[in-house]
Amino acid sequence: MRASELAALVGGTLHGSDRSIQGVAPAHTAGPDQLAFATRGTPGAAGVLLARETAPDRTVVVVDDPRLAFAVALQTLFPSVHPPGVQPGAFVHPSAALGAGVAVYPGAYVGPGCILGDRVVIHPNAVLYPGVIVGPDTVVHAGAVLGADGFAYAAGPQGPVKMPQLGGLRVGARVEVGTNTCVDRGALADTVLADDCKLDDLVLVGHNCQLERAVLLAGQVGLAGSTQVGAGVIIGGQAGTTEHTEVGAGARIAAGAGLHKPVPPGATVMGRPARPAGEARRMWALVRRLPDLWSELKALRRRVEALEASV
Amino acid sequence: MRASELAALVGGTLHGSDRSIQGVAPAHTAGPDQLAFATRGTPGAAGVLLARETAPDRTVVVVDDPRLAFAVALQTLFPSVHPPGVQPGAFVHPSAALGAGVAVYPGAYVGPGCILGDRVVIHPNAVLYPGVIVGPDTVVHAGAVLGADGFAYAAGPQGPVKMPQLGGLRVGARVEVGTNTCVDRGALADTVLADDCKLDDLVLVGHNCQLERAVLLAGQVGLAGSTQVGAGVIIGGQAGTTEHTEVGAGARIAAGAGLHKPVPPGATVMGRPARPAGEARRMWALVRRLPDLWSELKALRRRVEALEASV
Amino acid sequence: MRASELAALVGGTLHGSDRSIQGVAPAHTAGPDQLAFATRGTPGAAGVLLARETAPDRTVVVVDDPRLAFAVALQTLFPSVHPPGVQPGAFVHPSAALGAGVAVYPGAYVGPGCILGDRVVIHPNAVLYPGVIVGPDTVVHAGAVLGADGFAYAAGPQGPVKMPQLGGLRVGARVEVGTNTCVDRGALADTVLADDCKLDDLVLVGHNCQLERAVLLAGQVGLAGSTQVGAGVIIGGQAGTTEHTEVGAGARIAAGAGLHKPVPPGATVMGRPARPAGEARRMWALVRRLPDLWSELKALRRRVEALEASV
Repeated sequence: MRASELAALVGGTLHGSDRSIQGVAPAHTAGPDQLAFATRGTPGAAGVLLARETAPDRTVVVVDDPRLAFAVALQTLFPSVHPPGVQPGAFVHPSAALGAGVAVYPGAYVGPGCILGDRVVIHPNAVLYPGVIVGPDTVVHAGAVLGADGFAYAAGPQGPVKMPQLGGLRVGARVEVGTNTCVDRGALADTVLADDCKLDDLVLVGHNCQLERAVLLAGQVGLAGSTQVGAGVIIGGQAGTTEHTEVGAGARIAAGAGLHKPVPPGATVMGRPARPAGEARRMWALVRRLPDLWSELKALRRRVEALEASV
Repeated sequence: MRASELAALVGGTLHGSDRSIQGVAPAHTAGPDQLAFATRGTPGAAGVLLARETAPDRTVVVVDDPRLAFAVALQTLFPSVHPPGVQPGAFVHPSAALGAGVAVYPGAYVGPGCILGDRVVIHPNAVLYPGVIVGPDTVVHAGAVLGADGFAYAAGPQGPVKMPQLGGLRVGARVEVGTNTCVDRGALADTVLADDCKLDDLVLVGHNCQLERAVLLAGQVGLAGSTQVGAGVIIGGQAGTTEHTEVGAGARIAAGAGLHKPVPPGATVMGRPARPAGEARRMWALVRRLPDLWSELKALRRRVEALEASV
Repeated sequence: MRASELAALVGGTLHGSDRSIQGVAPAHTAGPDQLAFATRGTPGAAGVLLARETAPDRTVVVVDDPRLAFAVALQTLFPSVHPPGVQPGAFVHPSAALGAGVAVYPGAYVGPGCILGDRVVIHPNAVLYPGVIVGPDTVVHAGAVLGADGFAYAAGPQGPVKMPQLGGLRVGARVEVGTNTCVDRGALADTVLADDCKLDDLVLVGHNCQLERAVLLAGQVGLAGSTQVGAGVIIGGQAGTTEHTEVGAGARIAAGAGLHKPVPPGATVMGRPARPAGEARRMWALVRRLPDLWSELKALRRRVEALEASV
C-alpha cells in the first residue's frame, strides 16, 4: 500500500512523499517504510505517521481520529485470516447449523442445535453448549464457554436443589468474546449479547443478562444474573454487579467498581460500593485527611480547655 | 404432566382446573398451558402458577416454598440427559475408573488414576489431573480444571523453587463445578469439596482448602490455600480469602468481600477488608458524612473564636 | 533415599539415626519413615524432620531454610515426569518448532510458528496462539491460553473497531502458567514474561505487559495492558492494575489491591485504590474510629455551649 492509498482509505490528508508502506512498528522504533501511530509532534493536530517521526523526510497522513484511522489501516494491511470449515479435532454436532465461511478450530465444541452466522470464528477449545445462537462475524476466543447453566439453586431440606436452566443464549453480530470468558444461558428467558459487544478475557456474564449494543467489558468483569447494560457502556476490569443491576446507556464504570444499584445513563461511577466518580474522589480525599481532622479536633479541645480555665 | 400430578410431586394444593402442562415460561409471558412461577398474586401466600396469572381460568398449585417446588417441577419436566459413555474426542486414561452411567464429553481429559462415581458428567474440555476422586452425580462443566498444582514456591538463590504438590483432590457427591473454574490439588494432604457444594464459573479454590457440605461459591470467588469453609456457607461473587482463613458454618459473605481473619458461624460480613455487615454499613454511612463532620468542626471553631474574642 | 543423602542434598546437618525415607506426610500425621516439614520443635532453630516429631527416635536434618530444603527434597524424591512427545488428541501446527523432551498433552493446541524450548510441558487443553515463544522448562497448565488478542478497540461511528493485535508473546525459561490463565500477545511490540515468573490460576496479563524475572502473580490477578512489573515482585490474589502501571522491583502488592499509579521498588501497598501498607492500615483504623470522632466532637460542642452560656 502506498501512503496516498492509506490517506484515501482513512479519509486523511497526505503530507510528504508518497512512499510505500512495508509494515508497522511502534512510533519510537519505526523505520522509514513502516507505518506508525502518533497523536502529536505532527504538522497538524493529530496524525498517522509514516516513517520515523524525527526523520527529515517523514511522510504524514493527518486525520481527525488517528486511533480509528490506525485501526482501519491495520485491518487493511493485516487482514485476519481463518481457514473456513471445521478443522480436524473440532466437534460440531450434526444438528448445528453453520453459516458460510465459519471457521472452527481444533478442540472447539459446538453443541446440538447451535446456529452460527456467516464468518463466525470459534478458536481452539472454545465450547458452545446446546442451542447457542451466534451472529455473523462474531469471534469466540480460545477456551471461552457460551451457554452453560446459570448458577441457581433452591434451598432444600437435603441441600441445594438445582434450578434447571432452560433459557438460551443469543449473541449478536461482530461480537468478540475473550479467552476463557463464560457467558451463561438464561434460566427461562434468554441471555442476550447484542451486536458489537466486546468482552475481554476471563469475564463472567450470568444468566439472563441483557447487554445492548456495543458494550465493552474489560478483563475479569463479573455480571451477576439479570444485569441489564445499556448501549455503549464501558466497564473496567474486575468490576462486578449484583443481581438485577441496571446500568444506563453510555455509563462508564471504573475498574474494580462494585455495583449494587442502578447507574444512570452517561454516569461515571467508581469504588466498591460504587458512587459517582466525583463523590468517590471527594470521599477518598476526606479519608486521607482523617489525621488532619483528629489534629484539628485536638487543637480545638485545647483552646476550649484554655477558655474553661480562664472563665 | 397434569396439574394434579404436579401438585402431588411438590406436595402442594391444586386450585382450578386440572389442565395439562405443556412447557414453562416466565410469569409475564406464560400461555394457558405453560408452567410459571410466582410468589404473590396467588390465592394463597405463595404458589406455583399454571397458566397466565391474569387468566380467569388460571390453575394454581399453592406450596410452602414455591422456589423449591419450581426447581423440583422443572427437574421432572425437563430431566437433564447426558449420553453415558466416553464420547469420541474425549481422553480417559486407561487407569481411570468410571462408575455406571458416567458421561464424558468430547475434548474432556480424565487423567491417570482418577475415580469417577456413578452418573458423573464431565462436560467438553474439562480437565481432571491425575488421581482426582469425584463422587456420584457430580457435574463438571466445560473448561473446569480439577486437581492441578497449587501455587507454592520457596524463595531460592536463583529464583522461586517449586514446592511439588503431592496431595490429592476429593470431590463429593452432587457437586457442581462451573465453567472454567479451577480447584487445585493439595500440597501434602488433600483438597476436599464435600457433598452438595456448588461452584459457579471462574472460581478458584486453592490447595488444601476444605469445603464442608453444601457450600455455595458464586462467580469469580477466590479461596486462597487452606481456606476452611463450614457447611452451608454462601460466598458472593468476586469475594476472596487469604490463606488459612476459617469461615464458620452458615456464614454469608457478601460479593466482593475480602476475608483475612476468621468469620464466626452464621455471621454476615462484607467489604474489603471484611467486617460484620452492620458495622460495615455504619462505616460507609459515616464516611459519606465526612463533609458534615468537617462542617461541624469548622462551625465549632468559629464559636470558639468568638468566645476567645469575648473573654 | 537415606537421611544422610537428604542432608547432603539440602546442605543440612543430620541428627539421629540414618533411616530410610519412604514417603512424605504432613508433620502431624507422618509415620516413622516419612519425611515431614517443621520449622520449630526441633533441636535447632529450624529443621526438616524425618519421622513423627514426637517420636523418641526421631531423625532430624537441620537446615538454614527448611522451606527451600523441603522443596528441593520433594523435587528429588518425587520428580515430575511427563511423557515426551505430542500425545494423540493434541494439535501441533507443522510450522511449530519443539525442543527436545517437549510434552504436549491431549487437547492442547500449539499454533503456527510457535517455538517451544526444551522440556516445555503443555498440559491438556492449553492453547498457544500463533507465534508464541516459550523458553525451556516452562510449564503451561490445563486450559491456559497464551498469545490471544489483547483488548483494544477504537470508537467508530458504527461501533467499536478492532485494533489488530500484531505483536507477539515471549515467555522465558522455568515459567509456570496456571490453569485457565490468559496472557495476551502485544499490540505492536511483544508481551514479555521473563525467566522464572510464576502465574497462578485464572490470572490475566494484558497486551504489552512486561514482567521481569521471578515475578509471582497469585490467583485471579489482572494486569491491564502495558503494566510493567520489576523483578521479584509478588502480587496477591485478585489484585489488579490499570494500564501502563509501573511496579518497582521487589514490591509486595497485597491481595485485592488496585494499582493505578507507580509503586516504588521494594514498597508494600494494599487497598483499592492502593496506598503504602502503613498508611492504608492507619486509614482503616481511623475509619473504624469515626464513631469516636463524632462523639468527641459532640462532647466538645457541649463544652462550648456551656462556655457560651457562662460568658
